[in-house]
This record gives sequence, C-alpha cells and structure tokens, in this order.
Amino acid sequence: MTKVALGIDIGGTNTDFAFVDRDGEVLIEGHLETRNFSEVEVYVAALVEKARLAGARCEKDLDIIGIGIGAPMGNINKGTIEHSADLPWKGIVPLADLIKEQINLPVLVTNDANAAAVGEMIYGGARGMKNFVIITLGTGLGSGFVVDGKLLYGQDGFAGEIGHTIVRPGRTNRECGCGRLGCLETYVSATGITRTMLKILADSIKPSVLRDLSPNQLSSLDISKAALAGDSLAQLAFEHTGEMLGFKLADLVAHTNPEAIFLFGGLALSKGLIFEPAKRHFEENLLSIYKGKVDLLPSQLNSKNAAVLGASALAWDTFENGKK
Amino acid sequence: MTKVALGIDIGGTNTDFAFVDRDGEVLIEGHLETRNFSEVEVYVAALVEKARLAGARCEKDLDIIGIGIGAPMGNINKGTIEHSADLPWKGIVPLADLIKEQINLPVLVTNDANAAAVGEMIYGGARGMKNFVIITLGTGLGSGFVVDGKLLYGQDGFAGEIGHTIVRPGRTNRECGCGRLGCLETYVSATGITRTMLKILADSIKPSVLRDLSPNQLSSLDISKAALAGDSLAQLAFEHTGEMLGFKLADLVAHTNPEAIFLFGGLALSKGLIFEPAKRHFEENLLSIYKGKVDLLPSQLNSKNAAVLGASALAWDTFENGKK
Repeated sequence: MTKVALGIDIGGTNTDFAFVDRDGEVLIEGHLETRNFSEVEVYVAALVEKARLAGARCEKDLDIIGIGIGAPMGNINKGTIEHSADLPWKGIVPLADLIKEQINLPVLVTNDANAAAVGEMIYGGARGMKNFVIITLGTGLGSGFVVDGKLLYGQDGFAGEIGHTIVRPGRTNRECGCGRLGCLETYVSATGITRTMLKILADSIKPSVLRDLSPNQLSSLDISKAALAGDSLAQLAFEHTGEMLGFKLADLVAHTNPEAIFLFGGLALSKGLIFEPAKRHFEENLLSIYKGKVDLLPSQLNSKNAAVLGASALAWDTFENGKK
Repeated sequence: MTKVALGIDIGGTNTDFAFVDRDGEVLIEGHLETRNFSEVEVYVAALVEKARLAGARCEKDLDIIGIGIGAPMGNINKGTIEHSADLPWKGIVPLADLIKEQINLPVLVTNDANAAAVGEMIYGGARGMKNFVIITLGTGLGSGFVVDGKLLYGQDGFAGEIGHTIVRPGRTNRECGCGRLGCLETYVSATGITRTMLKILADSIKPSVLRDLSPNQLSSLDISKAALAGDSLAQLAFEHTGEMLGFKLADLVAHTNPEAIFLFGGLALSKGLIFEPAKRHFEENLLSIYKGKVDLLPSQLNSKNAAVLGASALAWDTFENGKK
C-alpha cells in the first residue's frame, strides 16, 4: 500500500484533483468542469466518483490518509465554502460534510490561495521563507498569507481575501460578484482584465484585433496573445492591470510586511506583460521603509499542479500524524 | 528592591515614560515634549536624565529589568526608528544604541501602536483575544496587529503601518509626511481631521465658529468641541473622517480577519463623533462573510497611560526571564 493524500483544487471553471505521495509525487490525477454543476450535491457525487475511478486505475494500491481541498472562500474552521462569488453555488456550502457522506476520510477545506501558499512553501520558491504572500490570478483573485512560517487563517478562517479590497471607491464603480463595487478582482484577474480591455476598446478609436470578439468570447488569453503580437490597446490593458495590482500590493505590505509576494496562475504566466507594470507600480507606491525589500516573484511551482499539490500538502501536514 | 520596567511612549508631540511593576502598577511617571528636540542625541540625554531623576524621587528602591519603547516606525529587529513622518528626526535613528550609551539596560523599540496592542491584550479590552488590531489615532495613525495571540512584526519588523495605505489614489491627493500622496493618516488622525475641516470650510459657505481659527491654531479638539456644540460643518468633518476610517478598516479585515478592532487615542475619545460614522461605513463596506463578525470597539485602557503600559508590558514579556 502506498500512502497518499487526495488534493483537490476547486476553481470557478475547473476542478483538478490528484493523489499525491509524501514526496509531492503525483501518482494519478483527473479533473472535471466546476461550472457544469449548478447543484453542489451532484458536483460532489461526480467528483467523488471520478476520484474513485482514478484511484482504481492507479497501478499502485493507494492508502488515502485524507483529503485537502482548496476552494474560493473555503473556511478551514467549518469545512465550508461561504458565499463564493466565483463558484456556481450560493450561500454556505457544507463541502466537507457532503464529501464525508460519500467517503469515510478526514477532509480539510481552505481558501484555494492558502493551499497554493502551502504548495509554494513546501515545493516552490518560498522554501525557507517565514513571511510571504501568494496572489493567485485566476477567474478571481485569491491570496494566502504565511506569517512566521504558518498559514494565517484569522479569527473566522477567512484571512487573505484581498481580492475583495476596494481599489477605487465610489458608487459608479465596477460590480463584483460579491455584491459590492470596485473590488480588486474586478480589475486584476482573468475576468478583470477582459473588463478593462472592453473599457479601453470603448474609450479608444485605435484599431485592435480584439474588436472582432464579443464580450463573451474575449478571454485574458486573447488579450495576452494580442499584447505579445504588438496590439497597443491590449498592452495598455496589461499596464492598467499591473498598475492596480502593484498599487494594492503596496498597501498589503503595510499590513503584514512580508519578504516576498508570489504571483501565481494563468494571468501571471504572461510574465513580462503583468510583471513589468506590477513591479514598477508596486515599488513606486511602497512606503520608503519597505522599498527594495519586498520581492515580487513569479510562483516557482509547476502551475498546472501547484494548487492541487498545495491542497495535498495541507492534508499531509494535518492528517499524517493523526493531528485531526 | 522593587522590580520595574521602564516604559516609554514617544509621540510626535509628547514623550511619556513610567516605571511600571509586574502587575501594571505605575510607580512613578514623567514626560517631556518630543517636538522641542530637533537633535535626537539631545533628546535622549534629556529623556534619560528625566527618567533618572524620576526614579530617584520614587519612594521605593527600583530594580529596572529593562526598557520598552513605543515609537512611530520603531523597528523591533534593529532597535531603530526609521524614516518616521511624525518625529523631528529624519532617516534611521539608532535609538536603542543611543540609550544604551547612557544606561546599561536592555532596550526594546517597537511601533507605538504595537506597544498599545500589547497593553490592550494584557490590561484592556483584548484580554483573551487571539486575533485583533489596535488603531491609534494621534498626530498620525498607527496600527498594531495581534495574530494567534502574538504581535505581528513581519519580515523587517514593520508590519502594521496602515496609516500609510492609500485612501484615494491620484496625483492631486493630500501630501503625507512620508513623501507620498493620499495616505490614510492624512485623512484619519488629529492632523488629518483638521485638513478635512479646512477643506470643508473652503467648500462650504455656511458659518462656523472654526472660521476664526488659523490653520496653525485649529486642532482636532476645537473640531470636536464645535461638533458637540452643534456646528454642522465640524460634524461633517467627523462624518468624512469616520467614512475614510470605516472604509479602510473593511479592507484591513480582508487581510487578517481579526475578531475585533480597537480605536485608541485622543481622536477616538470623542466616541460618538468618530465611532458612529466609522462603524456605519465599516459594516457597509465589509465583505459579506465578515459582516457582523468583527467588533469595532473603543480601547478600554486608561488612555493616559495605555501606550506607556504597553511599552512596559513588552519589556516585561521580553526581559523578565532573560529571554533577550
């Protein structure tokens, strides 16, 4: 029998899962499309069945020690997902309980960005760091804080929701899925940059290849490709997105004074495009005592597996020695 | 011999100090005016001499275990004050070393708000709390974070400088002593509210008793008195100040998810005036998962002694058992 943890990363679009051994080796993995499931019970049944089939397909006999889950608005204290703006399920979803009804295993649910932070700390660029933050740029914007070598959960298990800090105050600001206006993730995320792109296309009269795409078609990947091909309006969208990100990360530093901030996820992959403006505006906005001291870095995790590895690492950390 | 810690609170205007026993009893205290000393060496000499004289006047024989200091931009790792916008001394001030040249005692320097946080945790309203924040409203705006029952210092000892997060982005914003524009403390602090008051007096044509005071004369106390006497423009200044504060505290919660935030200091004393609008805008701006869960509370410390008690508590905590 090979001991493994089941790591699950639930995103607004996709869910990835993997059986991971103690050394971070993925033995077998799979995925399903989150957005296809409007009912969470059906989603859980499909997820558990997919994982069961994958486990059975594995050439080794698996001894599963527990399940670690990263999900937007995942609450570590209660095993719930609460009022996520990015998932199809509204209100409070008792995810750990729903899964335990199907499998007799311990389940841990946390913020997907917290899971990524643990992954970065154990397998990635934050090895040896005690104080850092990870920013995940996906459908939304997540963040995970590590303070003194430990994940920061906060009183209710909801620390690190800086995607829902306000960038631009005012009543005419962008609507956020959370019901408020002007949240950081309405600007800095895969969906945020497409909104910025539409605004730029509305304001400018310059030509752009992106004018042929409908708002529903337009993706951050299209903008990234156009920017790399020299489309000046697409480049401007990255400049604005990086400015917003750099500006708010400078504010973040004045809260917890980390030594590094990692950018992770699809949008962060277009390295030069988002990093250059983000770094410039970050340094420009930092209070002098922090200037030059806080590194803004790309995640050094294999981005395909990172969140799943992080989720599995959480499970190893918590369940290996029967802590919970 | 009675064992005591010497607690020192350095503010932009005044410095308070006290010899405090293990139970938080102030045996003897004193103060001097920070702003009268343009040279830090002269300030330290005067401070040490004042403390020496006070100690000699005490009817008990004092055995001083160490010195705890709260100061704006105080750095716990290095014993320095670095680039404070609120003190007369620029650059990096090696405060602990300067004091040790005069007295052979261990010295600990931290953010004045961190010292207040320890005071609140040991003697005040945060007894038993594990995750809370204190906001000190004085000449500037300081903040101290407690996470899992411990002060949050951050990588460089500078966590909790939210007075220098940006409220209103833009190049036409208020100048801050830190050299940047639009910092929270340019709006929310004793000096911030006087700037807001001047702006209101400029914009409005309504009469106000405050129109007889020059910008140099006008103090937050004048505004507070006028507001309590029914001056609608002074009341508007508190409304705006509370709005800014509530708005940024909602952002803060999305970072570390505390269970309570305490307001401390002169400006916070005008309870109804600042609390009512701050609380309203705080709740209004909170992400739904936090709504109704984070208390905004007045500090329950005797405000006159709180910072000094906090500084002494830090010294007790660190030096009592020869930890440092």
